[in-house]
Order: sequence, then C-alpha cells, then structure tokens
Amino acid sequence: MDAIKNIEVTELALRDAHQSLMATRMTTEDMLPACADLDAAGFWSLECWGGATFDSCIRFLNEDPWERLRTFKRAMPATPLQMLLRGQNLLGYRHYGDDVVERFVERAAANGVDVFRVFDALNDLRNLRTAVLAVKRTGKHAQGAISYTVSPVHKIQRFVDLAVGLREMGCDSICIKDMAALLKPQPAYELVREIKRACGEDTRVHVHCHATTGVTLVSLMKAIEAGADIVDTAVSSIALGPGHNPTESLIEMLEGTPYTTRVDLERVLRVRDHFAGVRSHYDEFVSHFLGVETEVFASQIPGGMLSNMESQLRQQGAGDRIREVLAEVPRVRQASGYPPLVTPSSQIVGTQAVFNVLLGPYAVLSSEFADLLLGYYGATFGEKDPELVKKAAAQTGKTPIDTRPADLIAPEWEKLRESAAALPGSNGSDEDVLTYAMFPQVAPGFFAKRAEGPHPPQGAAKPATPAPAAASGDAAPPALNGPVHYVVTIGGREHRVTVAPAAQEGAAQ
Amino acid sequence: MDAIKNIEVTELALRDAHQSLMATRMTTEDMLPACADLDAAGFWSLECWGGATFDSCIRFLNEDPWERLRTFKRAMPATPLQMLLRGQNLLGYRHYGDDVVERFVERAAANGVDVFRVFDALNDLRNLRTAVLAVKRTGKHAQGAISYTVSPVHKIQRFVDLAVGLREMGCDSICIKDMAALLKPQPAYELVREIKRACGEDTRVHVHCHATTGVTLVSLMKAIEAGADIVDTAVSSIALGPGHNPTESLIEMLEGTPYTTRVDLERVLRVRDHFAGVRSHYDEFVSHFLGVETEVFASQIPGGMLSNMESQLRQQGAGDRIREVLAEVPRVRQASGYPPLVTPSSQIVGTQAVFNVLLGPYAVLSSEFADLLLGYYGATFGEKDPELVKKAAAQTGKTPIDTRPADLIAPEWEKLRESAAALPGSNGSDEDVLTYAMFPQVAPGFFAKRAEGPHPPQGAAKPATPAPAAASGDAAPPALNGPVHYVVTIGGREHRVTVAPAAQEGAAQ
Repeated sequence: MDAIKNIEVTELALRDAHQSLMATRMTTEDMLPACADLDAAGFWSLECWGGATFDSCIRFLNEDPWERLRTFKRAMPATPLQMLLRGQNLLGYRHYGDDVVERFVERAAANGVDVFRVFDALNDLRNLRTAVLAVKRTGKHAQGAISYTVSPVHKIQRFVDLAVGLREMGCDSICIKDMAALLKPQPAYELVREIKRACGEDTRVHVHCHATTGVTLVSLMKAIEAGADIVDTAVSSIALGPGHNPTESLIEMLEGTPYTTRVDLERVLRVRDHFAGVRSHYDEFVSHFLGVETEVFASQIPGGMLSNMESQLRQQGAGDRIREVLAEVPRVRQASGYPPLVTPSSQIVGTQAVFNVLLGPYAVLSSEFADLLLGYYGATFGEKDPELVKKAAAQTGKTPIDTRPADLIAPEWEKLRESAAALPGSNGSDEDVLTYAMFPQVAPGFFAKRAEGPHPPQGAAKPATPAPAAASGDAAPPALNGPVHYVVTIGGREHRVTVAPAAQEGAAQ
Repeated sequence: MDAIKNIEVTELALRDAHQSLMATRMTTEDMLPACADLDAAGFWSLECWGGATFDSCIRFLNEDPWERLRTFKRAMPATPLQMLLRGQNLLGYRHYGDDVVERFVERAAANGVDVFRVFDALNDLRNLRTAVLAVKRTGKHAQGAISYTVSPVHKIQRFVDLAVGLREMGCDSICIKDMAALLKPQPAYELVREIKRACGEDTRVHVHCHATTGVTLVSLMKAIEAGADIVDTAVSSIALGPGHNPTESLIEMLEGTPYTTRVDLERVLRVRDHFAGVRSHYDEFVSHFLGVETEVFASQIPGGMLSNMESQLRQQGAGDRIREVLAEVPRVRQASGYPPLVTPSSQIVGTQAVFNVLLGPYAVLSSEFADLLLGYYGATFGEKDPELVKKAAAQTGKTPIDTRPADLIAPEWEKLRESAAALPGSNGSDEDVLTYAMFPQVAPGFFAKRAEGPHPPQGAAKPATPAPAAASGDAAPPALNGPVHYVVTIGGREHRVTVAPAAQEGAAQ
C-alpha cells in the first residue's frame, strides 16, 4: 500500500451549514461557544463568512457582519477563516465596479478572511478575475470555484478548461462547487482526475458537495481516490438534507483506506453537541425535509427553486400547474444557454418558466431574463435562442453584449462613500461603505439601529432566504388571463412586475 | 471499460425499513397499494416477512402473519419474497427443537417465502444448519447471513471462514448483515473480495447495511467494486437514520460506473410517494432521530441498546451513571467472548453492564448472561472469562456446554400442537401451532380476538420493540445499595429479577 495521504477538511458549520438548513439565521452568540474546539480540531479552514450571512446579519439579526468576522478571528486565530464570494457580485446581487470589488477584498482580508472562495453563477471567468487578482495582492489564499451543473453542454472538458483558466489567473486552489448535490461518484472521479492531469498534480483540488441526493459522500470518496486534496463537510447535528455530508462520517469513512484526516474527532463531537443544543433556537427556519431527494437529477430543479415556483403559482391561484412549470424549466434553461441553476440564475429561469406557463411561451420576458439573454450576467456555455435574444433587445431597448458586464460600470467608490457617510448611524468606515454598497435598501435601517445590538435568534420576524415571490398588496382574485401583478424577489431585492398577455396588450384594455 | 455488471437490489420497505424506523408497526393495508409497483420494479427480492413483523402482527396489529404472507404472495407474484429467520430461534426468542424448525420452514415456503435469509446472533453455524437444510429441501433459496461486528477477535478471516462454512452447508448465497452500520468502506471491500476468493467468484454475495453512521452507502459502493452481487436498500421515504440507504440514491450513484441496476426508477418513485403518504399513520412510533450517529464505532453500542440501558438506569434513579455503563459495556462484551451486539445479545450484555455499575462488577449475574457464559446461546468467537463461567455455573447450577444448544431439546411438535389446539380461536392449522410455538404468551389472546380483524395503525396502544425495561410495580425509592427489583424485558419476554449486593445477602437481612 502507498503511504497514507492526508485529506484536509473544511468545516462548514459557521456558514453554509446554517445557510442551507436554517435560512442563514444563526447568531454569532450561538456560534462562539464552539469556536475553541473548531479552531483546535485540525481543519484546513473554517468557512464562516460570505454567502448569505452578510445579508442575514443586517437584515434579520442586527449584527454588523464585519464585527462578526473580527470576533471569529479573535476566537479562532489558529485556523484559516474562509469566505464565499460571488465574484463581481461580491455578496450583493448586482455587478460592482472593479474599485468596489478591490476595496471589498482588501477590507475582508484586513478583518480576518484567509481563504477566499470565489465563484460566478455562470462560470464566466471574467466575473472572477478582479476579485481573484485582488485576493492575490493581499497575500491571502485565492480559491477559484467552478459551479458544477449537468447539461448537454457541460462536458468534463469544459470544467477542466475552467480549472486551467483559474490556475492561469493565479488561483491557489480549485474548488468544484456542487451546490445542488448533482455530482455523482463517477463524474466526481473523472473531474478531479482530469483537473489534476491538466493543471498538474500539485494543484490542490477542493470538493464542495451538498447532501440532498444522498450520493455525494460516495462522490467525495471517489474524488479522494482520484486525488482530491480537501473536502467540505459539516458536523452531523447541522448536516444532511439540503446541507452537507457529516464531518464525523467523512473521518470514519476513511479508516483503513490509503487516506486519513488530521481532524480530531473528539473535538468534532463536542462541536456537534454544541450545535445540537442550539438547533432548537431556529426551529421556525429549519428545513423541514432532511431526507434524500433524487429527482433533482432528472428535473435539474434544486429544492429551494421548486418551493419558490410553487409559491409563485399559488399566489396566482395556479398551484395545480406546477407539473407544467417543471416541464418548462429545462426548455427555458436550454433557451438561455444552459446556465447552472444557482442564485441568481435559478430564480431568473424559474420565474420565466412560471411566466411561460401562465401567459404563454415568452409572451412576457422578465427584465432579469432579458438581461440574462443579452449577456448582462456574463456568458453562458450554451447557445441562446437567437429569436429570444432579439425579443429581449426589443423589449428592453438594450443591445446584446459580449464584453465583461463590469466593463460597463464606471468607478463608483467615491459616490458610494458619500452616500453612506450621509446615513444616520454610519461610522464612516470603509466597511460601512461596503455594507451600504452591498445592500443599499437594508443598510440605512441597520445603521440606524445598530447600537441596539444583536437580536436574539427568536427575534427574527419573518421567514425568508430564499424569499418566495409575494402577490402585490391588493387581494386581486386569480386572473390568469388578465394582467398579473407580481412582486418578484430575486436575491433579496423586490421587483414589482406587471405582466399581461400580448393579445390583451394589443387590445389596449 | 469492462462490460457493465448488473447489480441486483433487495427492497426492504415491507420489513426491515418499518421495523427500523416505525417499531415494526406498519399494517398490511398500508403496504398493499405499493405492491404492484414493487413487484414490477425489477428487484431481486422483496423482504416482507420475518424479523419482528410476526411478533408485531399478533401483539399489536391483530393481523395473522401467515395471512399477511399469503396476501403479499398474491399481490407480488413475480418477484421472490424474502424473509429474515433467526436460525434455531426462528422468529421467537428461544432455541426450538429441530422438528419445529423444519416444520416452520416448510410452512413458510408453502405460504410464499422464496428467499430465506438465515442468521444467528453469535455466528454459531450450528444454530443455522437445521434451518438452512430445511430450506434446501423445499427447493427455495437459502441465504446464509453473517452478523457483522467489530472486535479484536472479528478479523476478516473469521468472517470468510463463516462464509466458507455456509457454502459447504449448501447456502445459495452469502449475506453480510451489518445491522449496526459498522461496516466501513475498506472492510466492506476486503470482506467481499476475500469471500469471493475463498468461496469462488460465482458465489453470490449480498450486502445488508443500515444507514446509522452515514458511511454505508460508500461501503455498498466499495462492496460492489469488490464484486458484491446484491445490495439491500429502502425507498427514501422510509430510509436513513437507523434504517437503510435509499433505493433511489443507490440507483443514481451507479450512473457512469461499470455497474448498473435493472430497477425501474419511475416505479420506485411511486413506491416512495406511497410510503411518504402513509408515514404519518405511525408518527407515535417513528424514530425521532434520522440523522447520523457515528459514536457506535467507538462505543459498539447500537442506538436501541443505548436507549434501553438509559431507561433501566432512570428506573433505578441512576440516570446520571450512563457514562459508567457505556464504559462498562466493552468490558462485559470482552468477558463474554465478544458477542456481536444484536438481539438478544445486545440486551443481555447491556443489562449486565447496568448490574455491574449499580451493584458492583458481577456481584449479580442475570440468568441470561449466565446462559451466555455457559454456552446455552451457542459459541462465541472470543474466549470467555473462566472465573465468570465458574461463577455462572455456581449461580445457576447448570454445567457449561459446548454442544449445539438445540441438541438438548427433545422433539416438541406434538406437544405444541396439542397445546395450540386447545386454545379458543385456534384453527387447528400447522401455521397456528407455529404462531403459538413462537409466542406462547401472546398467541392465545391473538387467537381469541383474531376474528375482529386487523387493527388500524392508530389502534396500536403502547410503544415497544425494543421494549424498555420497566421497574416493578411498587414505587420503591431509589435504593442502589439495597435489593433492586427489575422486570427485565428481553426480546419481548418479561423476566422478574430481584438482585441485591452480595455483602447484604451475607448479612441475611
């Protein structure tokens, strides 16, 4: 037998685990008692910031996310802290100017982030470049992440090409990010092997899988056999279902194999006990289904997206049409170039599928879907339907682009700084400017009441994340053939949309 | 790539799945609507009888288990029906005379069982032989099962020797039965490979794992890579936790590998939907924890055994001493020759550990523990503590044996037949005699009220299986140093036990 290879582990309890299972609602207070054990357990990194946690901190918890980060750094000085960064979107839901991206990365590093996992929903490397280069300038670890999905155009080689591009960009490691638990064992094996072959055996490959479909611990095993160096898990009391594979199971699984971990199981079990204890604080947000769901393999529709579409349909009195919508999603995805279905593309595709079923195929395009077709989110792997692209251009008055979307954004730091400084409660720091830049609608309220301090877990008033679409205020009866008023919430931003069948518009009623 | 190998699948929904997750409470009525899809889905076999279902039918559901079997056979004529048989114990909790074992197998085959999975808690092959030879005489499939466990004496080679012995006995296939989810991926691989090597590549190897520890879908993958031919799963709506790996995940896991199944996923999803729908009928019995629990790897204590010991301690006002008991269990197991911890050995070892902590090490031996030490359950792999064996002989007045336990049992069929025939409501069939032989305390009540027909699921009055130990009727204050009165329930039978410290006995108080 070969020498035993050490497999490194990233623990997700402090970020993706509660984002996936508890609507991102966990407070810093409920996490701190576990930090000493987490820091001493021997993890490669501790994911604890980014993703939806920033949004949740200011929207629901009245916590300053920057203060959370500094608190984590004090509590866990020994282990690298990791964040998830949505490339040019940072932690917000639009593309930012390069100057804002660079400032954000610099401040995140200064406040405690050691490992930046950077990804883009469409796998458009141009949307990652500014962030990755900024990380490199700070001297921190830049990890380039590939959003894994399945489609006729997502061949292994395309993913391998992305990995090569990320390495050429300067990324210190490559992450395969399987946010919908679609990565089966054999593709996991082939993908890791081919990335290693193309990028060099010394390229560290990190595999992130959710547990939804029940097969991905097997996928981690095959990825490790193929040469993966680091895997993501979460302690079992905050794992499984739409969350992740359990840390304890990963450790135990490797016994007797040519692989091991340096993670201290005793400490992991203490961390598990801690989160088992605080879990009840979040009962109203806890994902109700922790079993296995394999239909996503066929439908391509992640659970969160499904519940979102069901909610939209019910609001229109058309809850019985979910099967039509499910059948429509793959067609919409094909027409828009096979985007991976992850925020925000999952919401954009799902909402368009609902529109198509209720109003007729592409009778109305949502403005986001039009932007996706026109290239304003970046490039997709697949070809877009040229007729639909024309229609999107006609509807919006915008021209299709093939440049990097952020190339159209002028420097905006100074303007954001002035706006933020004018807000009551703003402390004038760069961090506050960035908070405002990320969430301009939420930040003013947060600054104003920040001094009240964190809300207790039970204080979070209404369930959200992902926020379901809500009908507009007036209780109009279901009118499937008349104008439909939506408040479509995409990535936390509300969009008021009124749509009506084309024929009706023609009749000028 | 080699040719694709077909992996056969046994579906557990109708037996072990609800035994593991719903205290064996599912009614035939709630299973029948799924039978057409189960029968047409392409399973190698459908496990649907034996284990605790027989007991549950007459104790809780007022169903005739033989009628259940015949009903299943009519509903699923195409796919082999499988049962779990506890060797010389049949479905009861004592060793039976060979004439009863032979009659039972003959009647089970005549009523519809096609595959007999035969095992013994101690892996004493002498306890399987009569049943296996009886199955062979019926022309049905005899599967010999190895109870998998972990201990210093349970080396791979010992299990391989068992497999060879089972093949020599005439078994048509070999099952590795991992009832506590202890089978890790690497041992799974080695065990299957070595069994194939020793017994011949054409020996069909069937792997049964529970899901408790979260690693065993990986173990199934490695077992398949090593040559396993058949694996056990349960549809996802009645899977995971102390149950089994989901059927859908197994099917999806193999995509792109050199393995496939012939199971129809569409039908499996319909079966899943059916059991998701009836699950709520059993809410009061449903296992409350469906997550992952890896501590059994270290403690060797399965979940059911743990809750049993906790209950015993609480009844004695000593709930705070569970950690001492947990530390005592491995010592008791070592002293008794490392039995696998499965019914009934798990209860016997657990109860003795409780006695040792409350009363001092082996101050009192339970009569069952004494029998275990003296060989009346069969032979163990490990050496027993010779001093304890002497003590057991002195306490019980029995001599240690190394013969097959059933060799001491005279033919008993005629006597059982006469006793059963005298019971009101008995129909005089051999099946009724066997029901009475299995559960002489429960059968009379069942025969008397059988005509009322099956109780609805909600009609099952009290939770049980495994039945926790209950304190005796009088509400004596906790008196850890005085005499302790127990009603110890082992395998459904109540034992009234009074124990007192030896010193106190000597004082003749």
